[in-house]
Amino acid sequence: MKKIGVIGGMGALATVDLFSKIVTNTEAKCDQEHVHLLIDNNSCIPDRTAFILGIEGAKDPIDELVKSATRLKESGADILIMPCNTAHYFIDRIKEKVDIDFISMIETTVNVIKDKYPDSKNIAVVSTTGTKRTNLYENYLDKAGYTSIIFDEVLQSDIMSSIYDGVKKGKVIEYTYLFQSVVDRIESLGADIIISACTEIPILMSSVETSIPTVDPTLELALATIRYAKG
Amino acid sequence: MKKIGVIGGMGALATVDLFSKIVTNTEAKCDQEHVHLLIDNNSCIPDRTAFILGIEGAKDPIDELVKSATRLKESGADILIMPCNTAHYFIDRIKEKVDIDFISMIETTVNVIKDKYPDSKNIAVVSTTGTKRTNLYENYLDKAGYTSIIFDEVLQSDIMSSIYDGVKKGKVIEYTYLFQSVVDRIESLGADIIISACTEIPILMSSVETSIPTVDPTLELALATIRYAKG
Repeated sequence: MKKIGVIGGMGALATVDLFSKIVTNTEAKCDQEHVHLLIDNNSCIPDRTAFILGIEGAKDPIDELVKSATRLKESGADILIMPCNTAHYFIDRIKEKVDIDFISMIETTVNVIKDKYPDSKNIAVVSTTGTKRTNLYENYLDKAGYTSIIFDEVLQSDIMSSIYDGVKKGKVIEYTYLFQSVVDRIESLGADIIISACTEIPILMSSVETSIPTVDPTLELALATIRYAKG
Repeated sequence: MKKIGVIGGMGALATVDLFSKIVTNTEAKCDQEHVHLLIDNNSCIPDRTAFILGIEGAKDPIDELVKSATRLKESGADILIMPCNTAHYFIDRIKEKVDIDFISMIETTVNVIKDKYPDSKNIAVVSTTGTKRTNLYENYLDKAGYTSIIFDEVLQSDIMSSIYDGVKKGKVIEYTYLFQSVVDRIESLGADIIISACTEIPILMSSVETSIPTVDPTLELALATIRYAKG
């Protein structure tokens, strides 16, 4: 079985979430049938969003990303994954320094939409403003022939508030009303699919009602990893 | 900050549980304040209990344990931990081949009992028959001046049934009645403290009532790891 390297720590809880999703979705009757994962929960990687947004004093995360990729490759990893949407912005620069491939969370998510929802056209990418700014999902969706729905400033600001003031502060119940209105507005914009493109979003999603199918990139990455590992 | 190596995969879910307990118990305001963990979720390690019990055809897990320890040391780990009680039986043999120290889950648990419950004397180690057979906890408790309560065959068999037929098969509710009677019998044997010395036990413990304090070795190992990492 192949060994999978995980560049983790972006953040630590998202890494736990991916690890948990890989383990609980693996069909295994004993310890030996699980995926061999090498996880580098590297807490030294500087903030990706701060660097991308050009915030003063923000460090380039590339050196620590390359250190993790090197450690994992030298430990025997056949391929790398990263449970962080924003970090995918740096993949090409990592590959300039380390000769190893990635299973992209973003590419995997778009492929899942193609396979599972062939009639969908308009995609709503629900993420932080940082991830939005990278256009990572939007560029991929565009290449695959989809339309990314554009959010107005108030809608994007309400998403940020739901993530930062809601989930990150443990106030999911208090922010359910706001997030229900976020989802209702996305529905009225004609979205066929919602991508929960931030690790906090699935937590909010489970407490609101919507008729639009949602795709969780962490879960899809976990499933793609299991398929790759089991050949 | 120190780097912690985790020999995981024994089993995969117990490794997720330890990782989760380290992350959620770390006081961190950002990604960069979390513990730098290197996790080798090595699914190639043969079954420890089968080897210890001398079951025919059971392989010695030492080679894979040494491979993991070597990988983690070469990746920069300063110390190693293992979220598997039974695997602690092999620590001395690993250290013969790899020059690195361990934070012992067993030693840590006994030290916590000393600190938090100074008046306790009689300790009930609730574990699989495999872990019992190694006497790992019993030897440590003995050295520290404690008495390990001896379970009769019926009690030990009911514990095994609660773990294997209950938790491992997702039937916690169905086995609550049996496990409540396990805990009642342990109470009547004069236990001052229960050690949940199998990763499945805390799940059962949370659904029964007891006046005896319980100690969760995975949680205590997580807390000891955070203390070590943060110096």
